[in-house]
Amino acid sequence: MEQLRPLDALNRARDKRVIVDLKNSKQYVGILKAFDIHINVVLENAEELVDGKASKKLGVVFIRGDTITVISPE
Amino acid sequence: MEQLRPLDALNRARDKRVIVDLKNSKQYVGILKAFDIHINVVLENAEELVDGKASKKLGVVFIRGDTITVISPE
Amino acid sequence: MEQLRPLDALNRARDKRVIVDLKNSKQYVGILKAFDIHINVVLENAEELVDGKASKKLGVVFIRGDTITVISPE
Amino acid sequence: MEQLRPLDALNRARDKRVIVDLKNSKQYVGILKAFDIHINVVLENAEELVDGKASKKLGVVFIRGDTITVISPE
Amino acid sequence: MEQLRPLDALNRARDKRVIVDLKNSKQYVGILKAFDIHINVVLENAEELVDGKASKKLGVVFIRGDTITVISPE
Amino acid sequence: MEQLRPLDALNRARDKRVIVDLKNSKQYVGILKAFDIHINVVLENAEELVDGKASKKLGVVFIRGDTITVISPE
Amino acid sequence: MEQLRPLDALNRARDKRVIVDLKNSKQYVGILKAFDIHINVVLENAEELVDGKASKKLGVVFIRGDTITVISPE
Repeated sequence: MEQLRPLDALNRARDKRVIVDLKNSKQYVGILKAFDIHINVVLENAEELVDGKASKKLGVVFIRGDTITVISPE
Repeated sequence: MEQLRPLDALNRARDKRVIVDLKNSKQYVGILKAFDIHINVVLENAEELVDGKASKKLGVVFIRGDTITVISPE
Repeated sequence: MEQLRPLDALNRARDKRVIVDLKNSKQYVGILKAFDIHINVVLENAEELVDGKASKKLGVVFIRGDTITVISPE
Repeated sequence: MEQLRPLDALNRARDKRVIVDLKNSKQYVGILKAFDIHINVVLENAEELVDGKASKKLGVVFIRGDTITVISPE
Repeated sequence: MEQLRPLDALNRARDKRVIVDLKNSKQYVGILKAFDIHINVVLENAEELVDGKASKKLGVVFIRGDTITVISPE
Repeated sequence: MEQLRPLDALNRARDKRVIVDLKNSKQYVGILKAFDIHINVVLENAEELVDGKASKKLGVVFIRGDTITVISPE
Repeated sequence: MEQLRPLDALNRARDKRVIVDLKNSKQYVGILKAFDIHINVVLENAEELVDGKASKKLGVVFIRGDTITVISPE
């Protein structure tokens, strides 16, 4: 059986809602539409979270990979 | 159907107004005229935002990619 | 006798519970399902730890390698 | 029509006065004489700005690219 | 006589107890079992040090190279 | 006429006194004897500056490029 | 006459006492035994300096290059 690679896990999350944590402590939630090997990420229907609650509707956001710490399906 | 890549999302935002967030918490808004794989970005009719409001007209700005956290269409 | 390489040690921890420490002082515990040469990591049944105790159930988490300081089997 | 690349925008600013913002919050103004793909930059007739006003005449300055956040024509 | 290279010094410390200092001021002590060119390191019988004294037994730890400042045999 | 590149400007400063600013706010002044594409730099007759005044004679110093922000002829 | 390169200066300091300054403000003094292109460094008879005075004998230390700011012969 082939071993899972980290990007496979991101691929399974495609078109699903994910929470993205940034190094600056910001959080974004949205539908994962795209990612690449740098972990640059595009979310749709994205919202910025404050204290874990949606606070600002942003639509599409492009998040630069090197600013991301954790991505998890909601 | 081909999958969206992160830079495709930036490409769709070309010639549209975007908000660019930097690691140092500054924000710039302007027309996205250019970007590259490092996410170096050029905005026209750019303004620096303070507390989310336009505060300083800058014209053209070149923003170095590694200082950017998030880009989103306005 | 062949010498152990760092990624061999991660490989031995595959499918076992590990604690992952991040540069921002957060800690995650979960089953190590995947990693790559950048030390990007995927945990299943993951929980965020606060003061060493499980505080938030997260399911699957993707952790970007460059934010990780230490990985150790629980 | 060919699309603008970020370095094209820097090229148009060559021999013009630009303001360069650094990650450490310093600002330099001067004539842009040279740049490269790392965004290493050389200014002539350069001055350091304090609170947006010229404070120290420096002549030629070489600025290392990875310390730069924004470059904009004055 | 051939000149010593930095990784040769690490190689001599293999299977010996070393202290590893991290950028976040944490210290780990343990038997150096593996390292690579990124200075990713694996310690066995590892303990976290607080104020220079062993405070928490960890067993095997994988330490990501870019978080390390200094490695020295105990 | 050929365009100036950033390293050409450093080359013109070779064997001249330069001030080197570091990311940690330290300043060094000395004769620029060597540099490379990483902007690693060697100064001779170097002194550390405190508040812009020479405070400590150091002789030869090797300065790692990624710690440098600005280099300017005195 | 051939121009000096930065690593040539380190090579001249081989087997001599040098002071190594780190980004975290720590200082180490010792005999420079090895270095590489990443500026990873090995010191022998090394001591950690506190306020410029030797405070802790360490023997051999491996210092990761990207944590170093300045190296100078004592």
